[in-house]
Amino acid sequence: MIATTMRAARLHRPGTPLAIETVPVPQPGAGELLLEVAACGLCGTDIHLAVDGDIPVARTPITLGHEAAGTIVQLGAGVASFAVGQRVALFPSPICGQCRFCRAGRESLCEATQAYGMSHDGALARYIVAPAAGAIAIPDAVDFATAAIITDGVSTPLHALRSRGALRAGEAVAVVGCGGLGAHAILLARMMGAGFIAAIDTQPQARARALDFGADLAIDPAEQPNPGRAIRAALGRGVDLALEFVGRPETVEATLRCLDTGGRAVLVGVGPARPALPPLLAFVGREHSVIGSFGMDKRDIADLLQLVARGRLDLSRSVTRSFALAEVNEALGQLAKKDTGVVRLVVEPGR
Amino acid sequence: MIATTMRAARLHRPGTPLAIETVPVPQPGAGELLLEVAACGLCGTDIHLAVDGDIPVARTPITLGHEAAGTIVQLGAGVASFAVGQRVALFPSPICGQCRFCRAGRESLCEATQAYGMSHDGALARYIVAPAAGAIAIPDAVDFATAAIITDGVSTPLHALRSRGALRAGEAVAVVGCGGLGAHAILLARMMGAGFIAAIDTQPQARARALDFGADLAIDPAEQPNPGRAIRAALGRGVDLALEFVGRPETVEATLRCLDTGGRAVLVGVGPARPALPPLLAFVGREHSVIGSFGMDKRDIADLLQLVARGRLDLSRSVTRSFALAEVNEALGQLAKKDTGVVRLVVEPGR
Amino acid sequence: MIATTMRAARLHRPGTPLAIETVPVPQPGAGELLLEVAACGLCGTDIHLAVDGDIPVARTPITLGHEAAGTIVQLGAGVASFAVGQRVALFPSPICGQCRFCRAGRESLCEATQAYGMSHDGALARYIVAPAAGAIAIPDAVDFATAAIITDGVSTPLHALRSRGALRAGEAVAVVGCGGLGAHAILLARMMGAGFIAAIDTQPQARARALDFGADLAIDPAEQPNPGRAIRAALGRGVDLALEFVGRPETVEATLRCLDTGGRAVLVGVGPARPALPPLLAFVGREHSVIGSFGMDKRDIADLLQLVARGRLDLSRSVTRSFALAEVNEALGQLAKKDTGVVRLVVEPGR
Amino acid sequence: MIATTMRAARLHRPGTPLAIETVPVPQPGAGELLLEVAACGLCGTDIHLAVDGDIPVARTPITLGHEAAGTIVQLGAGVASFAVGQRVALFPSPICGQCRFCRAGRESLCEATQAYGMSHDGALARYIVAPAAGAIAIPDAVDFATAAIITDGVSTPLHALRSRGALRAGEAVAVVGCGGLGAHAILLARMMGAGFIAAIDTQPQARARALDFGADLAIDPAEQPNPGRAIRAALGRGVDLALEFVGRPETVEATLRCLDTGGRAVLVGVGPARPALPPLLAFVGREHSVIGSFGMDKRDIADLLQLVARGRLDLSRSVTRSFALAEVNEALGQLAKKDTGVVRLVVEPGR
Repeated sequence: MIATTMRAARLHRPGTPLAIETVPVPQPGAGELLLEVAACGLCGTDIHLAVDGDIPVARTPITLGHEAAGTIVQLGAGVASFAVGQRVALFPSPICGQCRFCRAGRESLCEATQAYGMSHDGALARYIVAPAAGAIAIPDAVDFATAAIITDGVSTPLHALRSRGALRAGEAVAVVGCGGLGAHAILLARMMGAGFIAAIDTQPQARARALDFGADLAIDPAEQPNPGRAIRAALGRGVDLALEFVGRPETVEATLRCLDTGGRAVLVGVGPARPALPPLLAFVGREHSVIGSFGMDKRDIADLLQLVARGRLDLSRSVTRSFALAEVNEALGQLAKKDTGVVRLVVEPGR
Repeated sequence: MIATTMRAARLHRPGTPLAIETVPVPQPGAGELLLEVAACGLCGTDIHLAVDGDIPVARTPITLGHEAAGTIVQLGAGVASFAVGQRVALFPSPICGQCRFCRAGRESLCEATQAYGMSHDGALARYIVAPAAGAIAIPDAVDFATAAIITDGVSTPLHALRSRGALRAGEAVAVVGCGGLGAHAILLARMMGAGFIAAIDTQPQARARALDFGADLAIDPAEQPNPGRAIRAALGRGVDLALEFVGRPETVEATLRCLDTGGRAVLVGVGPARPALPPLLAFVGREHSVIGSFGMDKRDIADLLQLVARGRLDLSRSVTRSFALAEVNEALGQLAKKDTGVVRLVVEPGR
Repeated sequence: MIATTMRAARLHRPGTPLAIETVPVPQPGAGELLLEVAACGLCGTDIHLAVDGDIPVARTPITLGHEAAGTIVQLGAGVASFAVGQRVALFPSPICGQCRFCRAGRESLCEATQAYGMSHDGALARYIVAPAAGAIAIPDAVDFATAAIITDGVSTPLHALRSRGALRAGEAVAVVGCGGLGAHAILLARMMGAGFIAAIDTQPQARARALDFGADLAIDPAEQPNPGRAIRAALGRGVDLALEFVGRPETVEATLRCLDTGGRAVLVGVGPARPALPPLLAFVGREHSVIGSFGMDKRDIADLLQLVARGRLDLSRSVTRSFALAEVNEALGQLAKKDTGVVRLVVEPGR
Repeated sequence: MIATTMRAARLHRPGTPLAIETVPVPQPGAGELLLEVAACGLCGTDIHLAVDGDIPVARTPITLGHEAAGTIVQLGAGVASFAVGQRVALFPSPICGQCRFCRAGRESLCEATQAYGMSHDGALARYIVAPAAGAIAIPDAVDFATAAIITDGVSTPLHALRSRGALRAGEAVAVVGCGGLGAHAILLARMMGAGFIAAIDTQPQARARALDFGADLAIDPAEQPNPGRAIRAALGRGVDLALEFVGRPETVEATLRCLDTGGRAVLVGVGPARPALPPLLAFVGREHSVIGSFGMDKRDIADLLQLVARGRLDLSRSVTRSFALAEVNEALGQLAKKDTGVVRLVVEPGR
């Protein structure tokens, strides 16, 4: 039997700690399901929402958390493709499943543009209501914490590398910003047969981990503001594909400097800034591309769950630490600090 | 028998008229051929070189002209794939044929980076020496003037649409800057089955011609600085593919505003400016792309010659007027003026 | 007000005429809509079902007709994306909208595998019930008869050319079998900028129409059993893309013989036969491909409706004749005859 | 100083042992180079030529051997891109470097269609003459024996997986025929992030090695003639990509049975047989593809050399044994035997 109330970590005002409150357990409507949350990953976006306040929420108080995995405990009307008791991960936003992008398998572009932790209550709670269209079955061999971080932290770099960057085996890659997303980008580029990987990050711990995860070369932009120079010294040319996970004008510029003639830059990092392209004579003359990559498709998450289940992708170093719901503010504090060696943190509301 | 001297239109100093001088007929070296020039198209680049002087040349005096078609009159050592008497068009730069880009069929990226009219004497002369690697046979049904302008003025927008923009039949297109290149982009987008074409240009004559060439909608940026608004009003959404032929920050910005979610912007116009991307939150969140497109492949020129020969592409409105070599300065003057309705001008040195 | 009964053309036994019977008007269930049929195209499949009986139906009697366009008169529960009074065309099978293929925009591969005229009552009736997932809005400028034939007769060759064959502007194409589908393939290949089109058909009227629709060359296989020879004589090489619309071993073999090294053959024609590939030494050594193409995506239909609405594609010669519902057996008889010059026939149940 | 005579393994008559003879050292012509052979791999083709005689040679006697690596000792006229003393591997056929396929980077389709061991003397000798267009620099970290087998035995499956099969990370793969090529296909599919790999082979040793190289499932066709059934039992669906390395009708048929709806079959194995496609209703209705893959591009070889040099691809188990030139008939005998566990054998003429 499902309880009628539950504990949830709720945002009242950015910059103040999340409140652990007792709230009613929500009811799934038509096309929705109720999930008992086993694990919810924390993400840079949560810092923006809860600490910095530079990404606005639609209402307060609101329950945060958008990297969720758990067990279905109740089905709303008309949900036939899932069953109570099934282990599922959630697409990290409540997609409509009906718009032209959802129907084309490009769910992150869903025209309904809703978000857990911004417009919908999220998964830092005992239960969450989610559209069945966003649920993805978890193979037995994958634990909840790993499934949770796959839904965003691992699938976002896969989408950037595979769908948007179209990485081919043998190509050379640069990763600018080697936090949780960038570190997984290195792991995934290795898995996909990248021929060379350069990692660029200001933090020594991030560079050390990048090398540990499979990079061939780690560059400190404080020492080498033009990472393209160091790459050319090591590789003899620029890279075919460069990924940006920071979202600042100067890091976008550094990313473009890494490219070989004909190379592609995929931008993942977001922010209010407007980076400048290189002079058009150079950008056009070298046939460079700059490609935005936003989140992931459901297919990315489903494929990653299978890759982990079959031992193709080793995420055993990805969850740095797991917290109880009551420890969520400690977890956010640890995530907000730089150079702690954290890859990904997870909250387990059932602990 | 080939003469030993010839007349050539030579640049001594930007801003002064080209001098029509008598110079020795050059000799083809190994791997080269000597072409008797039948037609040489003029191009915006010639204005930059001869009038504005904002693209530097490697030496003066130098013969201008890089859109050439004519008849082979002599072969250098080791040229087996062509014969004297054959009608050929020239790739618009003297490619090496050996570098990794030439060997992959991406000749405009040739690592030798030489240029007619900048480092090599060009085709505004009775004869020109060119590498055999850059010669392309002209089908009988195509006249020299049309072949000449295909080598750059028509192949550049085809490359942007087909190879870089990957236009699919049914997609919506915007063309920013409807001069010689942009007007042909409209003609080609029609030929490829574009579902909707918006033309953006400040000049009324260019807009009128764009509609005549097949655009559905012509937008004056003086009236409507955000052309995306007019496109959304007509189409219900943004375009899938937008092409930029101007090369200025404000036109690049306008180009990006035309895009639907997931859309691609292809930049062809060059210049020293560094345009700003949209705020990263929007660029990434809508999965936009910005793609540089430089010149063309040999394959683009060869395919266009066949398309014209078979009546698939009608270029009968493309050569606005033909000039004798002695009239070259008059031709450049006409090209430099705005809003004259000129598509493409051609010089015929043999007249 | 909607009537409670209606006239429908129903199949009782293959080889006997369809019976025009009075049946109850069906009721739309959840997620469905009721369409008043304005036009229903006839198709080769209808001959297989009604005359030859070599494609089995799931039950009899059953109403035939799967190329439908009309006006929505009633909505089932939960249909929010359409309104009563809206003009729509129907995807030619009742897709589920939920399976992995529907969600990836590849609706013809829908795992529910239902079919109008086989398992579901079709559109040769005053009304039809259809899933809302299969409805596509018709632009004002497109009439019902044209919209009807677009849903299968025109969208099937577009899918073969665009999605499966990946035709690029300038490529050479061969079409084997120039009936309704093949004739539209020629029209569409022209629209997409094909550089050369060869048409192969045994019937003189079909060959004449193929030339009229834009083919460069028409080949009679009775005179020239290896069409590749005639193509090489005209073009100097084989084609890049060959389409097969017949579905017999000898026509598949002829299709493969048309290909240049590296060429693709797209098979659309179906039947029980098992065609033989060329000897592997030749097939592998020339890097040929054989690609199955089944029906269309919803996107193909939607794009064609826009292309016709904007005057990009002229289908004014596509509907050879229109019939009243009572004349349906006459129409089927005319379609079953060879060499009548028929492109597509339409039944208008409201006449 | 280069000797004037050398030892070479020459074919006089298929079915008789190769003769180890003293022959003149050949002289490189214009555009050619003379290579001192350090290692030459043996290949199934050599068995066809020397033992079975079912692939004809253009002349006898002829020196066999087409998987070569060594050191440049002399340059013919006009070769500027290589230097004496440089370590290079050879493209496995003497490509012209000038035809439309060579210029597009698809060298295996070279229109000159020459072959070492068939029309040109091969590398089972102290020296070989080769076109400079076919030479590829070997990184310092790659030994000659590994470089030699990369030129065909490893690059052929990479071409099938990457260029022709377009394998995406996460996709499921089947490999039919797990000898030298198939075993490397498994290794490479792992390197590229395949989500699941099924191996099909009649020989127990080949199946054991396939599992050792990274397959998830090994199927004995003697026990399970329809491998698709075993794959569906393990995976829940068919594979996205199936590769065929045998070249017989029954193995091609088995390959197609492995496919999921929408799946691609890539055929590499060659022979005189003409395999039958599945019934068209099934082949078309499931949108299957059959794709020929012939040899490799130069780019495939160059990328593999880098992947091995950087430790991305481990070929330490690939060269089963190395032989002196005098032992070449012993080596061929071992290769011709089935189920010996051989991956690849190499001859080192300088031993």
